Amino acid sequence: MSAEQKRADPKSITPQSEDFDRWYVDTVLRAELADYAPVRGCMVIRPYGFALWENVQRALDDMIKRTGHSNMYFPMFIPESFFAKEADHVEGFAPEVAWVTHGGGRELEERLAIRPTSETIICTLYRDWIHSWRDLPVKINQWANMCRWEKRTRLFLRTTEFLWQEGHTFHATDEEAGGEVSEMLGCYRELAEEWLAIPVIPGRKTESEKFAGARYTESIEAMMADGWALQSGTSHHLAQNFTRAYDITYSDRANTLQHPFQTSWGLSTRIIGGVIMVHGDDRGLVLPPRVAPVQVVVVPIVRSNDPEGTALVEDAVRRIQAEAGSSVRLRVDDREGMRPGEKYAEWELRGVPLRIVVGAKDLAGGQVTLVRRLDGEQRTTPLDGLAAQLPGLLEETQHALRARAQQRLEERSVDVASLDELVAAFAERPVFASGPFCNDPACEVRIKAAVHALTVRVLRADRSADGAPCLACGKPADHVALFARAY
Amino acid sequence: MSAEQKRADPKSITPQSEDFDRWYVDTVLRAELADYAPVRGCMVIRPYGFALWENVQRALDDMIKRTGHSNMYFPMFIPESFFAKEADHVEGFAPEVAWVTHGGGRELEERLAIRPTSETIICTLYRDWIHSWRDLPVKINQWANMCRWEKRTRLFLRTTEFLWQEGHTFHATDEEAGGEVSEMLGCYRELAEEWLAIPVIPGRKTESEKFAGARYTESIEAMMADGWALQSGTSHHLAQNFTRAYDITYSDRANTLQHPFQTSWGLSTRIIGGVIMVHGDDRGLVLPPRVAPVQVVVVPIVRSNDPEGTALVEDAVRRIQAEAGSSVRLRVDDREGMRPGEKYAEWELRGVPLRIVVGAKDLAGGQVTLVRRLDGEQRTTPLDGLAAQLPGLLEETQHALRARAQQRLEERSVDVASLDELVAAFAERPVFASGPFCNDPACEVRIKAAVHALTVRVLRADRSADGAPCLACGKPADHVALFARAY
Repeated sequence: MSAEQKRADPKSITPQSEDFDRWYVDTVLRAELADYAPVRGCMVIRPYGFALWENVQRALDDMIKRTGHSNMYFPMFIPESFFAKEADHVEGFAPEVAWVTHGGGRELEERLAIRPTSETIICTLYRDWIHSWRDLPVKINQWANMCRWEKRTRLFLRTTEFLWQEGHTFHATDEEAGGEVSEMLGCYRELAEEWLAIPVIPGRKTESEKFAGARYTESIEAMMADGWALQSGTSHHLAQNFTRAYDITYSDRANTLQHPFQTSWGLSTRIIGGVIMVHGDDRGLVLPPRVAPVQVVVVPIVRSNDPEGTALVEDAVRRIQAEAGSSVRLRVDDREGMRPGEKYAEWELRGVPLRIVVGAKDLAGGQVTLVRRLDGEQRTTPLDGLAAQLPGLLEETQHALRARAQQRLEERSVDVASLDELVAAFAERPVFASGPFCNDPACEVRIKAAVHALTVRVLRADRSADGAPCLACGKPADHVALFARAY
Repeated sequence: MSAEQKRADPKSITPQSEDFDRWYVDTVLRAELADYAPVRGCMVIRPYGFALWENVQRALDDMIKRTGHSNMYFPMFIPESFFAKEADHVEGFAPEVAWVTHGGGRELEERLAIRPTSETIICTLYRDWIHSWRDLPVKINQWANMCRWEKRTRLFLRTTEFLWQEGHTFHATDEEAGGEVSEMLGCYRELAEEWLAIPVIPGRKTESEKFAGARYTESIEAMMADGWALQSGTSHHLAQNFTRAYDITYSDRANTLQHPFQTSWGLSTRIIGGVIMVHGDDRGLVLPPRVAPVQVVVVPIVRSNDPEGTALVEDAVRRIQAEAGSSVRLRVDDREGMRPGEKYAEWELRGVPLRIVVGAKDLAGGQVTLVRRLDGEQRTTPLDGLAAQLPGLLEETQHALRARAQQRLEERSVDVASLDELVAAFAERPVFASGPFCNDPACEVRIKAAVHALTVRVLRADRSADGAPCLACGKPADHVALFARAY
């Protein structure tokens, strides 16, 4: 069945158990979060998906400002010569770059990269703006579109063009830069856990997985409902790799020229894919209340042959709206020509946390019906005082979602002490396996080869190996690594 | 003097009277609103300039949502074949397009335009999403970066890459689309007048100046401090020009296929240039309080040989901060190693509406000194109750700025009845001249030739010619046109 046909058929979400990938695409398209664009590997973010992204943005932007960063905007075009100065960086990104070669009707003298990330243009500019220790730290951020020419693309998770924020900072000392890397990973963790109800595992990437040009990369990893991992935000310690390559210097307090230490960190629209895959079920999206574009939907049940009951229902709906005010994001679905059941299914598909059904029968007893999307729990409740309870009910849902995701993460996590145990752990289904790891690239290769599509996600920040033998080579290991299949 | 040297020299703002263009560039660079990027025609928006843009964005985004529009996001890449379908549009924009020809290490089969505006990609997508009268109206908006390969560029006013919002709507009827065009121009007018304190003249563009592919374009025009005009926001009635070219149809209530009517409207970072050029003076920026990143700056005067006085000053500053809370955007400038006069000059350059100077001498009498950026008015005022007065004082400044701009507009506006009068009106200095105009393209050419660099800004929406003779051909005219030199 084509994507086009699927969208037309209201019953066509593939069950998760049948095909998780198809479930994901069906849900994104049918909930109208996004759609394929007729441009290779690109997507359109539709109003419902964009409203979700705006809520995520607002939460993260507040944290970015709270921690002392300012937003600014750099050009999307990067001349090839600037791009090429840091050797590891250009080697890592060049294969994914899109190039502008013509502008204003002429061939350009130098071709321009569409930014795949902005370290190179930012370093070129800050070379002129950083002179003295008084100019440090520099702590800036931008929200922007990026382009990476990916071979295989997936809605939200990997698209040729994507939206993100990228923070860039310069510091006088190595330690201060290291603190920044951790602080911003902490913001990502707060966003994931407190706003998106997604528990995450923080840690450091191996050498083969770190950002091209970084000394090291820290990441948060989340478990999707199918047991696969999603890298959900990364924070890089760039040391002096770029500031040396771009010759950025400042005079320290002793009037000696120094290269500052640098960080960068980014979180993208890919996180929306995480929200979908962590919380969704066979009826579609389940959105965390704190970022849901619509938190409460009110469905009035009116009958054309019952004008008196209809008037009562309409009064009750107006009362709920008035009493709720702006305390919750509430929408009344009074569309005509649709059966209530169709409306219920649509708002379930779209993941709205709470549904209030207002009918004449319930109202006769002063009641309405309240349905929770999370688990379908349904109960009648007095109309009196309902609106005042909504914020609390939404918070309950937020916590319940987080607890459910946490429980899954724990149930599908295993500790392994050897390659055989690792293979056995993945025999039945994808899991998060943790085990001692020496961080030798050769061991990484062996481990990845032992289980199909396996990757080392992170060297866990929350666990220590205490010299237990590396599960690949048996030498004493410093790290507990997280092994998983990943999007 | 190079731009680089100018930035280093704190006294180097060229006076407006000496060279307005240099004054503008000096102010933008020295106030650190933006800087030239090392990429042809591009700029970097620095934190202070971006915070100003964010405040403008928030005000306008609220209006866009209040009027029933949703934000979404479309790809920045437009395949050449999509771009080319509407003949006038492609003719108008093709010369300014930047082309991506290579991606992922290969030459592309079809080159991709970087969007100069998004009608073509949006129509391509909405062709699949609009089917029935129930799908209308579609009212959407996006905030995005655009690229137009301009020959001459100026910071904020005209750059190869720029930021804007572009609204796009589809309607069942011609009239409804016309209402949308007016409503959104009204939002731009509200933004300019109520938030930016810039009085504007609304009207319709002539055929030669309208958007490529539109039936007509409405615009708001503002007068800068040098008497030149700035087109500050445009709203286009696209009729069925694109919906026919892109074959977008819907079934109306009688089940007949129809092409919807379409509008688009945009406002860009160019408006920041307007804020600078309307309100600024020889000391730099003067920002309207409602959008100023910093509304009130507090400068404590402390002396190392007066610990007791210093303690009093620090207490008073903490009290102002605590009492003001989040009612105003307040910053305390307690930087060490800078003389108060340097701080005053810097915050004046940056256009902060109010300055509070807190010194031991004033405090002995329970007073602080308050200085208004708008006119330099300075007075002592009791510390008691000061914080509560700040929002009101900022509103006063907002209104005074608007009144000053309105007064200038009136003083430099003239009515003309003939070409000779038009020429005479511009003999001394640039003005806004209004006169009867028949809207014949031949007359437009004659009028533009009569005065160097003159343009027809708009056919004024607020004036009628009542059949007075066109100042070029003498035939009865329907319109009063606004003639001015323009950025």
